[in-house]
Amino acid sequence: MAIELYWGSGSPFAWRVMLTLEVKGLAYQSKLLEFSKGEHKTRAYLQLNPRGKVPTLKDGDYVVNESLAIMSYLDRKYPEPPLFGKTPEETGLIWRFLTECEAYLVSASDKVVRPIFFGKGLDKVDEIQLGAQTVRQEFTQLNERLAGHHWLVGESITAADIGVFPIIQLFLRAASKDAAQPFDLGLLPLAQHYPNLARWTARIEALPNYQRTYPPHWR
Amino acid sequence: MAIELYWGSGSPFAWRVMLTLEVKGLAYQSKLLEFSKGEHKTRAYLQLNPRGKVPTLKDGDYVVNESLAIMSYLDRKYPEPPLFGKTPEETGLIWRFLTECEAYLVSASDKVVRPIFFGKGLDKVDEIQLGAQTVRQEFTQLNERLAGHHWLVGESITAADIGVFPIIQLFLRAASKDAAQPFDLGLLPLAQHYPNLARWTARIEALPNYQRTYPPHWR
Repeated sequence: MAIELYWGSGSPFAWRVMLTLEVKGLAYQSKLLEFSKGEHKTRAYLQLNPRGKVPTLKDGDYVVNESLAIMSYLDRKYPEPPLFGKTPEETGLIWRFLTECEAYLVSASDKVVRPIFFGKGLDKVDEIQLGAQTVRQEFTQLNERLAGHHWLVGESITAADIGVFPIIQLFLRAASKDAAQPFDLGLLPLAQHYPNLARWTARIEALPNYQRTYPPHWR
Repeated sequence: MAIELYWGSGSPFAWRVMLTLEVKGLAYQSKLLEFSKGEHKTRAYLQLNPRGKVPTLKDGDYVVNESLAIMSYLDRKYPEPPLFGKTPEETGLIWRFLTECEAYLVSASDKVVRPIFFGKGLDKVDEIQLGAQTVRQEFTQLNERLAGHHWLVGESITAADIGVFPIIQLFLRAASKDAAQPFDLGLLPLAQHYPNLARWTARIEALPNYQRTYPPHWR
Protein backbone atom coordinates (compact mmCIF):
# COMPACT_ATOMS: atom_id res chain seq x y z
CA MET A 1 0.00 0.00 0.00
CA ALA A 2 1.17 3.49 -0.80
CA ILE A 3 2.29 6.01 1.77
CA GLU A 4 -0.37 8.65 2.38
CA LEU A 5 0.52 12.11 3.62
CA TYR A 6 -2.15 14.35 5.14
CA TRP A 7 -0.96 17.93 5.03
CA GLY A 8 -2.05 21.54 4.79
CA SER A 9 -0.65 24.32 2.63
CA GLY A 10 1.75 26.54 4.57
CA SER A 11 2.30 24.17 7.49
CA PRO A 12 6.07 24.11 8.01
CA PHE A 13 5.66 20.84 9.88
CA ALA A 14 3.99 19.15 6.90
CA TRP A 15 6.65 20.68 4.65
CA ARG A 16 9.35 18.87 6.64
CA VAL A 17 7.76 15.54 5.87
CA MET A 18 7.29 16.30 2.17
CA LEU A 19 10.97 17.24 1.90
CA THR A 20 11.91 14.01 3.70
CA LEU A 21 9.82 11.95 1.29
CA GLU A 22 11.36 13.71 -1.74
CA VAL A 23 14.94 13.40 -0.47
CA LYS A 24 14.36 9.69 0.10
CA GLY A 25 12.69 9.34 -3.31
CA LEU A 26 9.55 7.82 -1.78
CA ALA A 27 6.29 7.92 -3.72
CA TYR A 28 3.26 9.03 -1.74
CA GLN A 29 -0.36 9.96 -2.09
CA SER A 30 -0.97 13.59 -1.29
CA LYS A 31 -4.00 14.23 0.92
CA LEU A 32 -4.29 18.01 1.03
CA LEU A 33 -6.58 19.22 3.81
CA GLU A 34 -8.21 22.64 3.48
CA PHE A 35 -7.93 24.28 6.88
CA SER A 36 -10.50 26.92 5.86
CA LYS A 37 -13.06 24.16 5.36
CA GLY A 38 -12.16 22.52 8.68
CA GLU A 39 -10.98 19.38 6.94
CA HIS A 40 -8.43 18.82 9.72
CA LYS A 41 -11.25 18.66 12.29
CA THR A 42 -13.56 16.11 10.67
CA ARG A 43 -14.43 12.99 12.59
CA ALA A 44 -12.60 10.84 10.03
CA TYR A 45 -9.39 12.87 10.29
CA LEU A 46 -9.51 13.02 14.08
CA GLN A 47 -9.37 9.23 14.02
CA LEU A 48 -5.97 9.55 12.38
CA ASN A 49 -4.79 12.57 14.32
CA PRO A 50 -6.67 13.16 17.59
CA ARG A 51 -5.26 16.68 17.94
CA GLY A 52 -6.56 17.68 14.53
CA LYS A 53 -3.15 18.81 13.34
CA VAL A 54 -1.02 18.18 10.30
CA PRO A 55 0.97 16.30 9.18
CA THR A 56 -0.18 12.72 9.55
CA LEU A 57 1.52 9.89 7.70
CA LYS A 58 -0.14 6.59 6.95
CA ASP A 59 2.03 3.75 5.69
CA GLY A 60 -0.09 0.68 5.20
CA ASP A 61 -1.85 0.20 8.52
CA TYR A 62 0.62 2.31 10.47
CA VAL A 63 -0.33 5.88 11.33
CA VAL A 64 2.02 8.40 12.89
CA ASN A 65 1.66 12.06 13.92
CA GLU A 66 4.14 14.85 14.65
CA SER A 67 6.63 15.89 12.00
CA LEU A 68 9.84 14.87 13.76
CA ALA A 69 8.34 11.52 14.71
CA ILE A 70 7.29 10.92 11.10
CA MET A 71 10.80 11.79 9.91
CA SER A 72 12.30 9.38 12.45
CA TYR A 73 9.95 6.63 11.36
CA LEU A 74 10.70 7.16 7.67
CA ASP A 75 14.43 7.17 8.26
CA ARG A 76 14.30 3.90 10.15
CA LYS A 77 11.92 2.25 7.67
CA TYR A 78 13.57 3.57 4.49
CA PRO A 79 17.18 4.15 5.54
CA GLU A 80 18.63 5.56 2.29
CA PRO A 81 19.97 8.16 2.35
CA PRO A 82 20.40 8.27 6.13
CA LEU A 83 19.07 11.57 7.46
CA PHE A 84 19.75 11.16 11.19
CA GLY A 85 23.51 10.81 11.05
CA LYS A 86 26.15 8.37 9.93
CA THR A 87 27.77 8.32 13.37
CA PRO A 88 26.50 8.72 16.97
CA GLU A 89 28.21 12.12 17.06
CA GLU A 90 26.28 13.30 14.01
CA THR A 91 23.03 11.91 15.45
CA GLY A 92 23.52 13.95 18.62
CA LEU A 93 24.25 17.12 16.70
CA ILE A 94 21.30 16.68 14.35
CA TRP A 95 18.92 16.29 17.26
CA ARG A 96 20.50 19.28 18.97
CA PHE A 97 19.60 21.43 15.97
CA LEU A 98 16.11 19.96 15.82
CA THR A 99 15.30 20.34 19.50
CA GLU A 100 16.76 23.87 19.59
CA CYS A 101 14.63 24.71 16.56
CA GLU A 102 11.51 23.57 18.42
CA ALA A 103 12.46 25.21 21.71
CA TYR A 104 13.49 28.60 20.34
CA LEU A 105 12.34 29.20 16.75
CA VAL A 106 9.03 27.36 16.78
CA SER A 107 8.15 28.91 20.14
CA ALA A 108 8.99 32.37 18.79
CA SER A 109 6.81 31.79 15.74
CA ASP A 110 3.71 31.90 17.95
CA LYS A 111 4.76 35.36 19.06
CA VAL A 112 5.96 36.74 15.74
CA VAL A 113 4.34 34.95 12.83
CA ARG A 114 0.84 34.35 14.08
CA PRO A 115 -0.07 37.99 14.86
CA ILE A 116 1.38 39.14 11.53
CA PHE A 117 -0.48 36.52 9.49
CA PHE A 118 -3.70 37.30 11.30
CA GLY A 119 -3.28 41.07 10.98
CA LYS A 120 -3.05 41.55 14.76
CA GLY A 121 0.51 42.87 14.71
CA LEU A 122 -0.25 46.34 16.00
CA ASP A 123 -1.98 44.86 19.07
CA LYS A 124 1.13 42.90 19.97
CA VAL A 125 4.07 45.18 19.31
CA ASP A 126 6.12 44.31 22.39
CA GLU A 127 5.57 40.58 22.00
CA ILE A 128 6.59 40.70 18.34
CA GLN A 129 9.73 42.74 19.07
CA LEU A 130 10.73 40.35 21.84
CA GLY A 131 10.10 37.29 19.69
CA ALA A 132 11.98 38.84 16.78
CA GLN A 133 15.02 39.29 19.00
CA THR A 134 15.06 35.54 19.67
CA VAL A 135 14.63 34.86 15.97
CA ARG A 136 17.57 37.07 15.05
CA GLN A 137 19.75 35.36 17.67
CA GLU A 138 18.87 31.95 16.28
CA PHE A 139 19.37 33.08 12.67
CA THR A 140 22.76 34.48 13.68
CA GLN A 141 23.84 31.18 15.20
CA LEU A 142 22.68 29.18 12.20
CA ASN A 143 24.45 31.65 9.91
CA GLU A 144 27.68 31.21 11.88
CA ARG A 145 27.34 27.45 11.87
CA LEU A 146 26.97 27.50 8.08
CA ALA A 147 30.20 29.47 7.55
CA GLY A 148 32.31 27.01 5.61
CA HIS A 149 29.65 24.29 5.85
CA HIS A 150 27.22 23.41 3.08
CA TRP A 151 24.88 21.65 5.50
CA LEU A 152 24.22 21.96 9.22
CA VAL A 153 25.73 18.57 10.07
CA GLY A 154 28.15 16.53 7.99
CA GLU A 155 28.74 16.55 4.26
CA SER A 156 25.22 16.05 2.98
CA ILE A 157 21.67 17.06 3.76
CA THR A 158 20.26 15.68 7.01
CA ALA A 159 17.12 15.91 9.09
CA ALA A 160 18.64 19.01 10.73
CA ASP A 161 18.48 20.93 7.43
CA ILE A 162 15.08 19.53 6.51
CA GLY A 163 13.65 20.26 9.95
CA VAL A 164 14.95 23.82 10.24
CA PHE A 165 14.39 25.03 6.66
CA PRO A 166 10.56 25.27 6.64
CA ILE A 167 10.62 27.16 9.93
CA ILE A 168 13.07 29.69 8.47
CA GLN A 169 10.82 30.02 5.44
CA LEU A 170 7.84 30.69 7.69
CA PHE A 171 9.62 33.65 9.28
CA LEU A 172 10.74 34.99 5.90
CA ARG A 173 7.19 34.71 4.61
CA ALA A 174 5.88 36.63 7.63
CA ALA A 175 8.62 39.26 7.26
CA SER A 176 7.62 39.86 3.64
CA LYS A 177 4.00 40.66 4.51
CA ASP A 178 2.65 44.22 4.52
CA ALA A 179 1.58 43.64 8.12
CA ALA A 180 5.25 43.16 9.06
CA GLN A 181 6.42 46.47 7.63
CA PRO A 182 5.79 48.51 10.81
CA PHE A 183 8.33 46.25 12.57
CA ASP A 184 12.03 46.22 11.98
CA LEU A 185 12.30 42.44 12.10
CA GLY A 186 15.79 42.54 10.59
CA LEU A 187 15.39 39.31 8.62
CA LEU A 188 15.10 40.55 5.03
CA PRO A 189 16.88 40.68 2.72
CA LEU A 190 18.25 37.40 3.99
CA ALA A 191 21.38 37.52 1.81
CA GLN A 192 22.32 40.84 3.36
CA HIS A 193 21.71 39.97 7.02
CA TYR A 194 22.55 36.25 6.96
CA PRO A 195 24.53 35.42 3.81
CA ASN A 196 25.44 31.84 4.75
CA LEU A 197 21.86 31.10 5.63
CA ALA A 198 20.78 32.52 2.28
CA ARG A 199 23.21 30.27 0.39
CA TRP A 200 21.98 27.29 2.41
CA THR A 201 18.32 28.00 1.62
CA ALA A 202 19.28 28.26 -2.08
CA ARG A 203 20.95 24.85 -1.80
CA ILE A 204 17.74 23.32 -0.47
CA GLU A 205 15.65 25.11 -3.08
CA ALA A 206 17.85 23.53 -5.75
CA LEU A 207 17.00 19.98 -4.62
CA PRO A 208 15.23 17.82 -7.22
CA ASN A 209 11.46 18.04 -6.76
CA TYR A 210 11.77 20.91 -4.30
CA GLN A 211 9.06 22.77 -6.20
CA ARG A 212 6.61 19.97 -5.50
CA THR A 213 6.94 20.67 -1.78
CA TYR A 214 6.45 24.45 -1.93
CA PRO A 215 3.20 25.54 -0.22
CA PRO A 216 0.68 26.05 -3.04
CA HIS A 217 -0.96 29.13 -1.56
CA TRP A 218 2.41 30.85 -1.06
CA ARG A 219 3.01 31.08 -4.83
CA MET B 1 37.91 8.78 29.06
CA ALA B 2 34.84 8.72 31.23
CA ILE B 3 31.51 10.23 30.32
CA GLU B 4 30.95 13.52 32.15
CA LEU B 5 27.46 14.83 32.85
CA TYR B 6 26.94 18.47 33.74
CA TRP B 7 23.61 18.83 35.47
CA GLY B 8 21.64 20.83 38.02
CA SER B 9 19.39 19.60 40.80
CA GLY B 10 15.74 19.71 39.82
CA SER B 11 16.26 20.09 36.08
CA PRO B 12 13.91 17.54 34.49
CA PHE B 13 16.02 17.69 31.35
CA ALA B 14 19.16 16.65 33.21
CA TRP B 15 17.13 13.97 34.97
CA ARG B 16 16.26 12.42 31.60
CA VAL B 17 19.92 11.96 30.83
CA MET B 18 20.76 10.51 34.25
CA LEU B 19 17.96 7.97 33.86
CA THR B 20 19.25 7.09 30.39
CA LEU B 21 22.76 6.54 31.73
CA GLU B 22 21.45 4.36 34.57
CA VAL B 23 19.18 2.28 32.34
CA LYS B 24 22.10 1.67 29.99
CA GLY B 25 24.39 0.89 32.92
CA LEU B 26 26.93 3.51 31.87
CA ALA B 27 29.36 4.90 34.41
CA TYR B 28 29.74 8.65 34.42
CA GLN B 29 31.32 11.49 36.32
CA SER B 30 28.75 13.73 37.90
CA LYS B 31 29.39 17.44 37.49
CA LEU B 32 26.74 19.11 39.59
CA LEU B 33 26.37 22.82 38.83
CA GLU B 34 24.91 25.10 41.49
CA PHE B 35 22.46 27.39 39.72
CA SER B 36 22.37 29.68 42.76
CA LYS B 37 26.10 30.30 42.36
CA GLY B 38 25.75 30.91 38.63
CA GLU B 39 27.92 27.90 37.84
CA HIS B 40 25.96 27.35 34.60
CA LYS B 41 26.98 30.82 33.38
CA THR B 42 30.75 30.71 33.92
CA ARG B 43 32.99 31.27 30.95
CA ALA B 44 34.28 27.69 31.18
CA TYR B 45 30.78 26.19 31.14
CA LEU B 46 29.58 28.46 28.34
CA GLN B 47 32.34 26.94 26.22
CA LEU B 48 30.57 23.60 26.63
CA ASN B 49 27.03 24.92 26.47
CA PRO B 50 26.72 28.36 24.84
CA ARG B 51 23.16 28.80 26.11
CA GLY B 52 24.23 28.24 29.70
CA LYS B 53 21.72 25.44 30.22
CA VAL B 54 21.83 21.92 31.56
CA PRO B 55 22.39 19.14 30.77
CA THR B 56 25.63 18.88 28.84
CA LEU B 57 27.28 15.55 28.17
CA LYS B 58 30.95 15.16 27.39
CA ASP B 59 32.15 11.79 26.12
CA GLY B 60 35.87 11.97 25.45
CA ASP B 61 36.25 14.96 23.13
CA TYR B 62 32.62 14.98 22.06
CA VAL B 63 30.27 17.49 23.67
CA VAL B 64 26.52 17.52 23.17
CA ASN B 65 23.70 19.71 24.52
CA GLU B 66 19.92 19.29 24.75
CA SER B 67 18.47 16.35 26.63
CA LEU B 68 16.78 14.57 23.72
CA ALA B 69 19.89 14.99 21.58
CA ILE B 70 22.04 13.52 24.35
CA MET B 71 19.68 10.58 24.70
CA SER B 72 19.80 9.99 20.93
CA TYR B 73 23.58 10.13 20.95
CA LEU B 74 23.86 7.70 23.86
CA ASP B 75 21.44 5.26 22.27
CA ARG B 76 23.38 5.22 19.04
CA LYS B 77 26.77 4.98 20.74
CA TYR B 78 25.78 2.47 23.43
CA PRO B 79 22.88 0.58 21.85
CA GLU B 80 21.96 -1.79 24.71
CA PRO B 81 19.21 -1.80 25.72
CA PRO B 82 17.73 0.02 22.73
CA LEU B 83 15.67 2.97 23.93
CA PHE B 84 14.43 4.39 20.64
CA GLY B 85 12.50 1.40 19.38
CA LYS B 86 13.10 -2.07 18.08
CA THR B 87 11.12 -1.38 14.91
CA PRO B 88 10.48 1.72 12.75
CA GLU B 89 6.90 1.75 14.05
CA GLU B 90 8.11 1.93 17.66
CA THR B 91 10.63 4.62 16.76
CA GLY B 92 7.85 6.78 15.31
CA LEU B 93 5.65 6.32 18.34
CA ILE B 94 8.44 7.04 20.81
CA TRP B 95 9.26 10.30 19.06
CA ARG B 96 5.58 11.18 18.93
CA PHE B 97 5.43 10.95 22.73
CA LEU B 98 8.65 12.93 23.09
CA THR B 99 7.71 15.73 20.69
CA GLU B 100 4.21 15.98 22.16
CA CYS B 101 5.76 16.18 25.62
CA GLU B 102 7.90 19.14 24.50
CA ALA B 103 5.11 20.86 22.58
CA TYR B 104 2.41 20.57 25.23
CA LEU B 105 3.72 19.64 28.68
CA VAL B 106 7.06 21.44 28.64
CA SER B 107 5.40 24.55 27.18
CA ALA B 108 2.74 24.42 29.89
CA SER B 109 5.39 24.13 32.60
CA ASP B 110 6.49 27.71 31.90
CA LYS B 111 2.94 28.82 32.65
CA VAL B 112 2.22 26.58 35.63
CA VAL B 113 5.41 25.51 37.36
CA ARG B 114 7.55 28.58 37.14
CA PRO B 115 5.15 31.03 38.86
CA ILE B 116 4.44 28.50 41.61
CA PHE B 117 8.12 27.78 42.29
CA PHE B 118 8.89 31.48 42.31
CA GLY B 119 5.95 32.37 44.55
CA LYS B 120 4.29 34.49 41.85
CA GLY B 121 1.22 32.30 41.53
CA LEU B 122 -1.31 34.83 42.71
CA ASP B 123 -0.13 37.31 40.05
CA LYS B 124 -0.80 34.79 37.30
CA VAL B 125 -4.04 33.05 38.20
CA ASP B 126 -5.54 32.94 34.69
CA GLU B 127 -2.32 31.77 33.08
CA ILE B 128 -1.90 28.99 35.65
CA GLN B 129 -5.49 27.82 35.27
CA LEU B 130 -5.16 27.76 31.49
CA GLY B 131 -1.86 25.91 31.63
CA ALA B 132 -3.24 23.44 34.16
CA GLN B 133 -6.05 22.59 31.79
CA THR B 134 -3.50 21.57 29.15
CA VAL B 135 -1.60 19.57 31.75
CA ARG B 136 -4.73 17.67 32.80
CA GLN B 137 -5.55 16.88 29.16
CA GLU B 138 -2.06 15.52 28.59
CA PHE B 139 -2.10 13.54 31.86
CA THR B 140 -5.47 12.09 30.83
CA GLN B 141 -4.12 10.95 27.48
CA LEU B 142 -1.04 9.39 29.02
CA ASN B 143 -3.22 7.70 31.62
CA GLU B 144 -5.42 6.24 28.87
CA ARG B 145 -2.41 5.12 26.90
CA LEU B 146 -1.10 3.27 29.96
CA ALA B 147 -4.31 1.32 30.50
CA GLY B 148 -3.15 -2.24 29.96
CA HIS B 149 0.39 -1.13 29.08
CA HIS B 150 3.31 -1.19 31.45
CA TRP B 151 5.30 1.25 29.30
CA LEU B 152 4.34 3.95 26.82
CA VAL B 153 5.69 2.05 23.81
CA GLY B 154 6.39 -1.68 23.53
CA GLU B 155 7.16 -4.18 26.25
CA SER B 156 10.02 -2.44 28.02
CA ILE B 157 11.15 0.98 29.08
CA THR B 158 12.03 3.34 26.23
CA ALA B 159 13.09 6.93 25.70
CA ALA B 160 9.39 7.84 25.71
CA ASP B 161 9.06 6.83 29.38
CA ILE B 162 12.39 8.34 30.33
CA GLY B 163 11.66 11.58 28.54
CA VAL B 164 8.15 12.08 29.90
CA PHE B 165 8.68 10.95 33.50
CA PRO B 166 10.78 13.87 34.82
CA ILE B 167 8.34 16.37 33.32
CA ILE B 168 5.45 14.64 35.11
CA GLN B 169 7.46 14.75 38.32
CA LEU B 170 8.05 18.46 37.87
CA PHE B 171 4.30 19.11 37.76
CA LEU B 172 3.68 16.88 40.78
CA ARG B 173 6.39 18.69 42.69
CA ALA B 174 4.81 22.05 41.84
CA ALA B 175 1.34 20.77 42.76
CA SER B 176 2.60 19.72 46.20
CA LYS B 177 3.91 23.19 47.08
CA ASP B 178 2.06 25.49 49.46
CA ALA B 179 2.03 28.09 46.70
CA ALA B 180 -0.09 25.72 44.58
CA GLN B 181 -2.80 25.26 47.17
CA PRO B 182 -4.92 28.25 46.06
CA PHE B 183 -5.29 26.51 42.68
CA ASP B 184 -7.28 23.42 41.99
CA LEU B 185 -4.68 21.91 39.69
CA GLY B 186 -6.36 18.50 39.86
CA LEU B 187 -3.13 16.50 39.67
CA LEU B 188 -2.78 15.18 43.23
CA PRO B 189 -3.24 12.61 44.55
CA LEU B 190 -1.99 11.10 41.31
CA ALA B 191 -3.28 7.60 42.10
CA GLN B 192 -6.78 8.98 42.48
CA HIS B 193 -6.90 11.15 39.35
CA TYR B 194 -4.62 9.14 37.06
CA PRO B 195 -4.21 5.61 38.42
CA ASN B 196 -2.38 4.14 35.42
CA LEU B 197 0.03 7.02 35.41
CA ALA B 198 0.65 6.48 39.13
CA ARG B 199 1.46 2.79 38.58
CA TRP B 200 3.78 3.74 35.74
CA THR B 201 5.66 6.28 37.85
CA ALA B 202 6.03 3.60 40.56
CA ARG B 203 7.48 1.26 37.92
CA ILE B 204 10.13 3.84 37.02
CA GLU B 205 10.83 4.58 40.68
CA ALA B 206 11.52 0.88 41.16
CA LEU B 207 14.32 0.84 38.57
CA PRO B 208 17.74 -0.08 39.93
CA ASN B 209 19.70 3.05 40.83
CA TYR B 210 16.63 5.25 40.46
CA GLN B 211 17.46 6.87 43.79
CA ARG B 212 20.78 8.07 42.42
CA THR B 213 18.92 10.15 39.85
CA TYR B 214 16.48 11.82 42.22
CA PRO B 215 17.04 15.60 42.51
CA PRO B 216 19.03 16.08 45.74
CA HIS B 217 17.28 19.26 46.81
CA TRP B 218 13.83 17.66 46.36
CA ARG B 219 14.45 15.21 49.23
